[in-house]
Amino acid sequence: VFAVGDVQSVILMNETEPSEYKQVILVRIDLRLPPGKLAVQVAHASVDAVLKALKSGQGKEQVRAWHASGSKKVVLRVADKAELFKYKTGADSAGIITALITDAGRTTVPPGTVTALAIGPDSEEKIDEVTGELRMR
Amino acid sequence: VFAVGDVQSVILMNETEPSEYKQVILVRIDLRLPPGKLAVQVAHASVDAVLKALKSGQGKEQVRAWHASGSKKVVLRVADKAELFKYKTGADSAGIITALITDAGRTTVPPGTVTALAIGPDSEEKIDEVTGELRMR
Repeated sequence: VFAVGDVQSVILMNETEPSEYKQVILVRIDLRLPPGKLAVQVAHASVDAVLKALKSGQGKEQVRAWHASGSKKVVLRVADKAELFKYKTGADSAGIITALITDAGRTTVPPGTVTALAIGPDSEEKIDEVTGELRMR
Repeated sequence: VFAVGDVQSVILMNETEPSEYKQVILVRIDLRLPPGKLAVQVAHASVDAVLKALKSGQGKEQVRAWHASGSKKVVLRVADKAELFKYKTGADSAGIITALITDAGRTTVPPGTVTALAIGPDSEEKIDEVTGELRMR
């Protein structure tokens, strides 16, 4: 699994200027989504997780803190649906808000295709415990 | 100006199943952002516009209606910063919420680079009056 685009740089940026909160969005590399489609799936996941968080007490505060510190978002690739769900299970177990995106499938992919997963916003430390290995590979 | 990725298909989808609300996110093609970076900018714009809308009475209702109808998002390319601001001015004049994204510039682009603009969520009709010509080109 490798990072999409310049995620490597995003990680380096974080080393010089730490952000306490972040949101990670995982996207399936096996779907080979074109850039515009990929961006829409990532935005769907990001917004859905934020709206979900705003409905809960603790989540609301996390969204506020995350947004106040620059709304850090990191897009990372996973190999396939199975790997995406592995991280969803990890995030669920850790009590981190997730948003799973299923595409209506009228365009590039078959109907009901799971395309992306947002994890957080939550503390970097908590999210890294779930997705940290993705950054190392 | 051409659509990013399969935006053409997204537009076709809309013809068969109309959505009353949408959000358009404009991205600068001249920056040649890699896919992961592009997705992060689009997500920044989308989320920021939603959070802005939630702070206003009318906007809150629009976010609710938009989200209930599938959170339609369309990513479109603009040639450069000047064209992006042309559409920002149009959206501002029409009273549509916008979110302008400026990159911290520690990675791919110089500091303070304007990368993306979200327009809405708002009614399709209202947004099309501002960005409609982008779909035709």
